[in-house]
Amino acid sequence: MTTGHLSTPATAAAPSAAEWLPAADVAWTSDAGVLESRRTDRSGWPPQGRPAAVVFPRDAAEVSRVLRLAHEAGTPVVPRGAGTSLTGASTAGTGTVVLDLSRMNRIVAVRADDATAVAEPGVITADLDRAAHEHGLRYAPDPASHEISTIGGNIATDAGGLRCAKYGVTRDSVLGLEVVLADGRRIRTGTATFKGVAGYDLTGLFVGSEGTLGVVVSATLRLRPLPVETATVAATFRDAATAATACLALSATRVQPAVAELLDAATLTAVDAHLGTTLRARGAALLIAQTDGLGESALVADALRPYAESVEVSGDGTALLAARRAALPAIERLGRPLIEDIAVPRSRLADAIQEITVISARHGVPICTLAHAGDGNLHPIIVVDPAARDIPPAARRAAGEIFALALELGGTITGEHGIGTLKRDWLARELGETNHGLQRQIKDLFDPKGILNPGKVF
Amino acid sequence: MTTGHLSTPATAAAPSAAEWLPAADVAWTSDAGVLESRRTDRSGWPPQGRPAAVVFPRDAAEVSRVLRLAHEAGTPVVPRGAGTSLTGASTAGTGTVVLDLSRMNRIVAVRADDATAVAEPGVITADLDRAAHEHGLRYAPDPASHEISTIGGNIATDAGGLRCAKYGVTRDSVLGLEVVLADGRRIRTGTATFKGVAGYDLTGLFVGSEGTLGVVVSATLRLRPLPVETATVAATFRDAATAATACLALSATRVQPAVAELLDAATLTAVDAHLGTTLRARGAALLIAQTDGLGESALVADALRPYAESVEVSGDGTALLAARRAALPAIERLGRPLIEDIAVPRSRLADAIQEITVISARHGVPICTLAHAGDGNLHPIIVVDPAARDIPPAARRAAGEIFALALELGGTITGEHGIGTLKRDWLARELGETNHGLQRQIKDLFDPKGILNPGKVF
Repeated sequence: MTTGHLSTPATAAAPSAAEWLPAADVAWTSDAGVLESRRTDRSGWPPQGRPAAVVFPRDAAEVSRVLRLAHEAGTPVVPRGAGTSLTGASTAGTGTVVLDLSRMNRIVAVRADDATAVAEPGVITADLDRAAHEHGLRYAPDPASHEISTIGGNIATDAGGLRCAKYGVTRDSVLGLEVVLADGRRIRTGTATFKGVAGYDLTGLFVGSEGTLGVVVSATLRLRPLPVETATVAATFRDAATAATACLALSATRVQPAVAELLDAATLTAVDAHLGTTLRARGAALLIAQTDGLGESALVADALRPYAESVEVSGDGTALLAARRAALPAIERLGRPLIEDIAVPRSRLADAIQEITVISARHGVPICTLAHAGDGNLHPIIVVDPAARDIPPAARRAAGEIFALALELGGTITGEHGIGTLKRDWLARELGETNHGLQRQIKDLFDPKGILNPGKVF
Repeated sequence: MTTGHLSTPATAAAPSAAEWLPAADVAWTSDAGVLESRRTDRSGWPPQGRPAAVVFPRDAAEVSRVLRLAHEAGTPVVPRGAGTSLTGASTAGTGTVVLDLSRMNRIVAVRADDATAVAEPGVITADLDRAAHEHGLRYAPDPASHEISTIGGNIATDAGGLRCAKYGVTRDSVLGLEVVLADGRRIRTGTATFKGVAGYDLTGLFVGSEGTLGVVVSATLRLRPLPVETATVAATFRDAATAATACLALSATRVQPAVAELLDAATLTAVDAHLGTTLRARGAALLIAQTDGLGESALVADALRPYAESVEVSGDGTALLAARRAALPAIERLGRPLIEDIAVPRSRLADAIQEITVISARHGVPICTLAHAGDGNLHPIIVVDPAARDIPPAARRAAGEIFALALELGGTITGEHGIGTLKRDWLARELGETNHGLQRQIKDLFDPKGILNPGKVF
């Protein structure tokens, strides 16, 4: 990548990126096509304007130099992995410099005896998992986008995934980080060990901070054994609420499924159209439960049977899980998706599903709902006219009612996707003013000039 | 508890606690016996002087009033659960007010369908576990002291325990908190759901902060299903390092034991003397592994057999685990224990154990070592003359070498007990100056007057 001239002037009084970028001695570009490609993310809702430049650091020292100079110049920096944010967290508007971490994609180490790995932020999630497989291990967090998302992006949002029903979210697999602070200083947080409580949990503070507190340049991650046995239970139900109720009955089995994914009728129809499958014909709701302990699948199947229209047990469920992972691309064929991500206490999952159908009808907006049912984490996906330049009012009202519903049911406006730009207005409502104010003070402490991913989260 | 006059004057220019405590309208005392009892903790190393008063709030509003007034007066406040800290984190010296949370001991709710509970900080850990049992659930974190430690204390140190080999540390079971800040303001953090990423992870920041950032007045905790089957594998080895090596072989089974506790010969001898058991005669090192999935124990037993002198599989292992939990009281009969708590990458556990025997010999101090072997978390317990008024130089040097060893092996100076007063001098060495400085700034942000548990951690 050659350095080039800037095609978009930086804003206001601050020195333009073109003035300080050459001193960073790092590959960058202001090619219009590249800028356009890094302007938005998977959320599909672009910001005002486009970035001034895209920088491609290859190591921590380069990230450090870029941030030191950006900090001096007061230039906003947007860290970016694969741009799979669903909330606008990696959108980059006028005057920003995009810190594209996709070239920092080395799996530095897989330490089989320690059951840990060290990875750079640009490593594709599924690649790390595959590298672990060679040692009889796996990297448990598996967001639906795991074939395209990066470890750095997963850390930035504390991504969940299918297996987090049993193995937890990204936070639960991050042992330690190397982070470049806003002014270019570098720190290590956490440990290379499974346990460690020396000082405050800065690792946890960076995980889920959406690029607003620092830039992760390396992560020490926990791996887990590959399962001793994998079995998949596919159950169909007369509706999604019944499937949610059935999930509660799983408690009595004393078995914790590794995966418990619920797809409603609208989602099944979309997936069928996309993949040529016939899932919708099998039932109006599908629950895909996967167990990974010996002899567990029969217990799960037996517990679901009283609620289900059909229950089938099979092996590793590759085709079913592929259908689940194809849900978002499938829905994207129907229109532009506005992807919500609420979580509710498990017992309220059926209530949430039912109320979402009421909201859909009230505002006349199609909503496809899928859920990580084991966690009470729902993705109601509002399908919007692809020609719309901004979120249409009916969709906006429906989204607002879904957020309000989540809080009313004792839940949260985001289970695993984060706040980004799309949910900023709701954050204080969930946190309360004192907590929200304290979080802003933490942001100011870590990033006094406000250069790190400004306009996101807060 | 009636209010009384202060038997110890508060320090310096700040108003004495006697002046502002009556306005808090909360039970308190300055009875000399009570002050003495709250002066130290299980670490056994008392501070200078003793507290000015002990306050017994019954609810969050009372905690809030006490902190607001203490904040105004600039009085140092030491939050305290059961005083089972092993690092001096709950010691209370001259001029402090002890905030004794033991009367806030209500289990507010067990929500079986949500698999959550809400508990006040003074709830005894094992009591919460027992309450969950009635619903087919359990509270997984089980520090060895679980029959006497409190949930609030567990949160303050991010306590580990036996079952954290599989179920993680306290942090992994804390979903949300209600916290009173240093100035008396109250916030809620986290969620009542299994997943939630709205804003920064303040829950994680408070967990493990040792009472220096705020006072937890309520916690929403994750419960897990009671196990479908529990089996215990007891294996003896020719030495503890061999037992540690055997633990690595467990990976190949693809089974994650819930518990993997290792006791060395010195610990076994102490336990035998305390309980009248004959563990030492069975071997020079004992590994107690517990599985809680179907059919897992045979796999674990088979994997250990090539390394072990004997392997026995039994049921729930109550007697063996009771022996493990009795290790600290047993060692306390030999002298005053200085309890270290290092963690190393799992593959270095055998190296750590061997090097500790060398350190013990070099300084002529007896060291009993036990380990949460599944996590690479060791407790080398240095046995000190009970008549010593301060930590004897040889013990101090041995402890220093154990800390240095942990860092050299890529580990940490504390896996689950925290920093308290005893490890403060080592914290910056582990964290590095920049990280340490950032943590102090966080402390200043949350507690600008430095009234919360001063002298601990930093």
